[in-house]
Amino acid sequence: MSEVADFGLIGLAVMGQNLILNVADHGFTVVCYNRTTSKVDHFLENEAKGKSIVGAHSLQEFVSKLKKPRKLMLLVKAGAAVDYLINDLVPLLDQGDIIIDGGNSHFPDSNRRFEELSKKGILFVGSGVSGGEDGARYGPSLMPGGAEEAWPHIKPIFQAISAKSEGEPCCDWVGPAGAGHYVKMVHNGIEYGDMQLICEVYDILKRVGGFEDSEISEVFAKWNTGVLDSFLIEITRDILKKNDTDGVPIVEKILDTAGQKGTGKWTAINALDLGQPVTLIGEAVFSRCLSALKAERTRASKILPGPEIPKNVITDKKQFVDDLEQALYAAKIISYAQGFMLIREAGKAYGWKLNNPAIALMWRGGCIIRSAFLGEITKAYRENPELENLLFHKFFADAVTKAQSGWRKTAALATQYGIPAPAISTALAFYDGYRCERLPANLLQAQRDYFGAHTFKVLPEFVSETYPEGKDIHVNWTGHGGNISASTYDA
Amino acid sequence: MSEVADFGLIGLAVMGQNLILNVADHGFTVVCYNRTTSKVDHFLENEAKGKSIVGAHSLQEFVSKLKKPRKLMLLVKAGAAVDYLINDLVPLLDQGDIIIDGGNSHFPDSNRRFEELSKKGILFVGSGVSGGEDGARYGPSLMPGGAEEAWPHIKPIFQAISAKSEGEPCCDWVGPAGAGHYVKMVHNGIEYGDMQLICEVYDILKRVGGFEDSEISEVFAKWNTGVLDSFLIEITRDILKKNDTDGVPIVEKILDTAGQKGTGKWTAINALDLGQPVTLIGEAVFSRCLSALKAERTRASKILPGPEIPKNVITDKKQFVDDLEQALYAAKIISYAQGFMLIREAGKAYGWKLNNPAIALMWRGGCIIRSAFLGEITKAYRENPELENLLFHKFFADAVTKAQSGWRKTAALATQYGIPAPAISTALAFYDGYRCERLPANLLQAQRDYFGAHTFKVLPEFVSETYPEGKDIHVNWTGHGGNISASTYDA
Repeated sequence: MSEVADFGLIGLAVMGQNLILNVADHGFTVVCYNRTTSKVDHFLENEAKGKSIVGAHSLQEFVSKLKKPRKLMLLVKAGAAVDYLINDLVPLLDQGDIIIDGGNSHFPDSNRRFEELSKKGILFVGSGVSGGEDGARYGPSLMPGGAEEAWPHIKPIFQAISAKSEGEPCCDWVGPAGAGHYVKMVHNGIEYGDMQLICEVYDILKRVGGFEDSEISEVFAKWNTGVLDSFLIEITRDILKKNDTDGVPIVEKILDTAGQKGTGKWTAINALDLGQPVTLIGEAVFSRCLSALKAERTRASKILPGPEIPKNVITDKKQFVDDLEQALYAAKIISYAQGFMLIREAGKAYGWKLNNPAIALMWRGGCIIRSAFLGEITKAYRENPELENLLFHKFFADAVTKAQSGWRKTAALATQYGIPAPAISTALAFYDGYRCERLPANLLQAQRDYFGAHTFKVLPEFVSETYPEGKDIHVNWTGHGGNISASTYDA
Repeated sequence: MSEVADFGLIGLAVMGQNLILNVADHGFTVVCYNRTTSKVDHFLENEAKGKSIVGAHSLQEFVSKLKKPRKLMLLVKAGAAVDYLINDLVPLLDQGDIIIDGGNSHFPDSNRRFEELSKKGILFVGSGVSGGEDGARYGPSLMPGGAEEAWPHIKPIFQAISAKSEGEPCCDWVGPAGAGHYVKMVHNGIEYGDMQLICEVYDILKRVGGFEDSEISEVFAKWNTGVLDSFLIEITRDILKKNDTDGVPIVEKILDTAGQKGTGKWTAINALDLGQPVTLIGEAVFSRCLSALKAERTRASKILPGPEIPKNVITDKKQFVDDLEQALYAAKIISYAQGFMLIREAGKAYGWKLNNPAIALMWRGGCIIRSAFLGEITKAYRENPELENLLFHKFFADAVTKAQSGWRKTAALATQYGIPAPAISTALAFYDGYRCERLPANLLQAQRDYFGAHTFKVLPEFVSETYPEGKDIHVNWTGHGGNISASTYDA
């Protein structure tokens, strides 16, 4: 009688409620709990009515209703609340029970919780959950990592409720410790990038092309049938055609100050920490920061001039739109290539064996960045799981090659007419840097050696007795000053 | 007899040696110590010979030779070495003695050391020291912060040995706790940006303009007499004309893989943490990361195509060079504006009263980023210490306005011919975003509300009963799904 539930969920905000309904729809019995217990009652009397969902008014009651090994998920605000809850739960649980944190926890926290709980015999899983309200309800992308012994127990539930891509569940085991939340973090960073790219293109269509929102919606509708086919393109199409009762598109009434919850920032910081040039996400995060300075920007707009944009400056609208599509597509390829560079480096740095094709498949459906394009990435990594870089795969190399002309034209157009397109531009600068056998960093190294005796290495073709291969070389550039290279002092 | 020294210095790498010689030159007696004591003997017998410099072979001896209150500086590798040394020193010191950390410590470490030592009655000063070998020897920029009671004691020495700008010392009190190292960190970030900008311009001159290094050296020589007059432009001029014995410029023999010691990275991470769009430093750090992937780039260069650069594509070389000068100048203004935005935010976030005109003056001379330009920044902040943004000052607003055409042409040229110019481009994108009263972040907010019920605020001109001012609004975009806004779940 008492141990009825296959799965437990704590936290009845929108994601929690929808996820419970989803689990129940797949034939599992779910027990739910919320600190404000009136939420439990309200949920049971309304959305959950008539479904295999039971409630609990205390953690004791909640735990007592779960079949063993208990599988329970927390969907509460990331941070201290998760630790408090785990602390309260542990004395109520048995060895081998499974705590799943489905919130947007920062991966170092999940690393720590994994360690702490494994000492107590509790299996910790940190799982990325993406897809927003709708995803949670009808099939999210799930990215679980942590104690691998937990996987066989939660796999049937997770793969049942997750999104499917051509019949395959968009949920697989990611890796140890905080790897699940790590991959979710990178997902969110990429999401920041995708959204920023769409905003830049919308801005160019509007301000250079002179397009109305309804026309832009049609452009996105068309793009959604091609290489850009994706959830974010689709919702942008819908957003742009949703008018208010007065006929004004609702989007035009929205304050242009982007919020953020920190996951994009974490990705950019992690990229800096791991020394990976994930420039597009970086610019996307900084763009949100700049958007937040609304009052300062308004004052600046009265002082700082920019180029005039002549009316009807775009004569060939079809070409203009096609160029923008190519720019968006190419920049997106760069962003995903950068994201997988970061994941590769994380695998090395943290000693995680990460499964690239599985990650691409998890992002293929259910989540915010789901797209046809991720099907191509899955395919590329299945062909070659050790692929050094997405850009080394023929499909993507060909795609950026083909897209290059429209991409460059778009970046130049934005530059010429003063439309900020930092994500499109940085993607191009990355591409042009990445395909450079020789970057101008030789001059930078000379400068560092000049003022700080930081030394440099020699190019292979100039190896000599004076400049031996692999040696740290210091030149006395000025003819005076010391000959001591900087052994301990850093600058 | 024993307490002879006005100042003590631990750490005899290049910066330490030069700083000691500098202090001695100004009439002070210095005692020096190094863990490897043979370095002490070697230094005393050579560079320090005949000067008011004494040595010590133990910390006890070192401390015993200092006049009270003792003023001693550590110039050792930032990190654990500083803590170990402080730990060993504290029992040997008296209340009111002053420990100065002159290394490139991370400011949170200096915050911590300041707190710990103040409990023990020791005055901790974290001081930025910039200027490389030559600066340390003949006049560095010094940026001390920490225990303000220490300032009257070290001021005579610090302001004597520091660089001077029009007679004023490039050294002043920065602020409490780790403020000195914070300002040094931002200095280094800006240094990363300046160096990256120079590298981009060098690359464009070489690969688009077809200039030889000797010609580029002449360009820099000319620029050094104008608005770009600065140490980094000057040394670039010298570097580019320094040929090896075989006639090949040494710079062309240097491996194009930039090293970094982390201070630029710290600045970019701090900018992300404080939510300030310091994009130019971000791109400069990422460019160093990309340069480090030499082997991967070399492979990519065989696969990924770019535009052909026709020979003699630049017909008007003077205009081309002038445009580049304007691009470099404008991007530099943006970078410094961003740097001071970060400092402003740090002042708020950490509760530090920071002195903008003093900071600009400290950077005016002695340090790596010293320039005529910083004289203008000093002037602007002296006129109005509360200046909201450098770009709001007439001098800089006029300068970017005038530079804009060359700046846009340069960014477009790099885009067209496939030369990576991420710093020049991101500066322009920032400028175009900063002067935008309306950014496309309204669409981004609509997307976030669509998929995650994250809510938005309404523009003032569209405030209504349905959309009240300042309220968090959620729209049911799809017509299905919940009406619950995301109260606790973050995405």
